[in-house]
Amino acid sequence: MIFEARLPKIELIWENQSSGGKMKVIHYSEAEAKKYPSEQAKGATGRVVIGKADGAGKFCMRVFEIAGGGVTGKHAHKWEHEVFVHSGRGAILRDGEWVALSTGSVVFIQGKEEHQLKNTGEEPFVFVCVIPAGAPEL
Amino acid sequence: MIFEARLPKIELIWENQSSGGKMKVIHYSEAEAKKYPSEQAKGATGRVVIGKADGAGKFCMRVFEIAGGGVTGKHAHKWEHEVFVHSGRGAILRDGEWVALSTGSVVFIQGKEEHQLKNTGEEPFVFVCVIPAGAPEL
Repeated sequence: MIFEARLPKIELIWENQSSGGKMKVIHYSEAEAKKYPSEQAKGATGRVVIGKADGAGKFCMRVFEIAGGGVTGKHAHKWEHEVFVHSGRGAILRDGEWVALSTGSVVFIQGKEEHQLKNTGEEPFVFVCVIPAGAPEL
Repeated sequence: MIFEARLPKIELIWENQSSGGKMKVIHYSEAEAKKYPSEQAKGATGRVVIGKADGAGKFCMRVFEIAGGGVTGKHAHKWEHEVFVHSGRGAILRDGEWVALSTGSVVFIQGKEEHQLKNTGEEPFVFVCVIPAGAPEL
């Protein structure tokens, strides 16, 4: 009897979590831009465009902009990154060497891999970066 | 003794899974383009740019291109989508109405929400779409 009484509640929570919200449509620039969280970083901002606040429980989408001459912090962490370069020209540090990136580039950074990104052009270097839930969103 | 002998093996597997691979850097167009998997779809192709084959165990990045006049299938499924519009002009069906999308648009489609995307311009409409692991990659 205890199990019969509890099961409907569990299902109700699942329904609300998975289809309770109306589709979110924004331009990435509408999300709040925050300073890239690293003292090494220069001219870099990040925006959480889809995250926990939207009910995204598995992974989080951020959009970063690096100004001309700018750079992110150099670091490694446990979680992976899935990156898509939207615009501009830049490079990523891979195993001690800078690899060129441009519009349409894709990067998969595994957990524990050291990485750093920089703008190598004059226009803003803009990229999408997806991380798993549980990691700091920004 | 059995436990002592087995623990190092488990750690070794974890190391390989989380940092064994060298960072993957490609242009999205290098990934194989496949026909969008729906009979309703027209002029739409998809590419898995980061997925299981790369060791991405939590979420999968795909890039879709819809040609002028093209459309994806209209459907709903259990898993969520995190979408970023890379280029072109299009629209997404939300609750029976078409909502305009352009370069830099972001869409969060929750699980079970019906959706369909179409190109409303002449240039290819290109967007990134991230899904959780376990869903069909394409």
